[in-house]
Amino acid sequence: MERTEDIGFPEVTLRLPGWVRDLVSGEERTYPTVEDRMRLAVELSRLNVRNDTGGPFGAAIFERETGRLLAPGVNLVVGSGCSVFHAEMVAIMVAQKVVGTFDLGADNLPSYELVTTTEPCAMCLGATPWSGVRHLVCGARDEDARAVGFDEGSKTSEWVGALEDRGITVQQDVLREEAVAVLREYAERGGEIYNSRQGTDPP
Amino acid sequence: MERTEDIGFPEVTLRLPGWVRDLVSGEERTYPTVEDRMRLAVELSRLNVRNDTGGPFGAAIFERETGRLLAPGVNLVVGSGCSVFHAEMVAIMVAQKVVGTFDLGADNLPSYELVTTTEPCAMCLGATPWSGVRHLVCGARDEDARAVGFDEGSKTSEWVGALEDRGITVQQDVLREEAVAVLREYAERGGEIYNSRQGTDPP
Repeated sequence: MERTEDIGFPEVTLRLPGWVRDLVSGEERTYPTVEDRMRLAVELSRLNVRNDTGGPFGAAIFERETGRLLAPGVNLVVGSGCSVFHAEMVAIMVAQKVVGTFDLGADNLPSYELVTTTEPCAMCLGATPWSGVRHLVCGARDEDARAVGFDEGSKTSEWVGALEDRGITVQQDVLREEAVAVLREYAERGGEIYNSRQGTDPP
Repeated sequence: MERTEDIGFPEVTLRLPGWVRDLVSGEERTYPTVEDRMRLAVELSRLNVRNDTGGPFGAAIFERETGRLLAPGVNLVVGSGCSVFHAEMVAIMVAQKVVGTFDLGADNLPSYELVTTTEPCAMCLGATPWSGVRHLVCGARDEDARAVGFDEGSKTSEWVGALEDRGITVQQDVLREEAVAVLREYAERGGEIYNSRQGTDPP
């Protein structure tokens, strides 16, 4: 891709790590069950930690009916120097680029499902309805992330209902223990906990 | 910039429109008062509409003390095909790229202020603490955006207090009428209202 004219401010490029290819290539990229899909997301989170490419969070977007992988995502905050690059945001941005539209819920598209190894933080939760996905599947709970020191942001306790009011189904606790194991592995390796400076949870 | 190895998924590049250069070049890029800063953000939103590069939303990040512009942002959702590219997110991503870190609140940095023409939606609100900015300045209110058909997402009515609990000051209603005028201009031009399909506000 050629660089466009210099406008005095840099471009920002989101780029998945090279190892992602090895994880998802050479196969049909179809994941029939919700556990198959979460297993891929957990493996993304685990390899992200072991390859030192980011935090212990993985996500992926699938065609709901067929289980075909549309886009993977991993947390790239520290390595990319961008606080926006949580796993869910990365998966959404790559998915929309693959499909060629900002709305994965457009009428001519199949129904898409966002699978994430940890319940979305306040930002990713806010991004979910805009993305157009119709289903959200979560592994670890907010409290699991908090237990190793991550801050999920200011979320209301009614966030599941709020998504469902917007026509997005939510499934929780899918392979929760497997997802939590990666959070713990990261903490035990002394991985960076990159919360904002005053990131204490309001009561 | 060279393309890296093909990993089977596309890169996503955030690129400000070329006209942004004309708006902020050839000057010191210093905006002393909060009104000066909001005036720039409103002008970004207006030119974004008139140049057909996106929705009627502008934002910018400034050094709080000096008023030096760090990064501008405009809504690029439709043109970029990315639901994440709200004005605030764009400003945050570009600002972090300029500074070279995911945390604008790092100890060695000056205090940064995010100025936005409309109060942040749920996603941008969630992104604000992660970004490291210490101050948020808003023009139009949520209800002004809703009045022309935009959905701000599921925000609690206590969002100002929740930010302040995290050490982020909030100033509202700065040049509110000027900001609202651009929202109205966009609606009158028949601009696309790109909410999610079931984007109705919960009561």
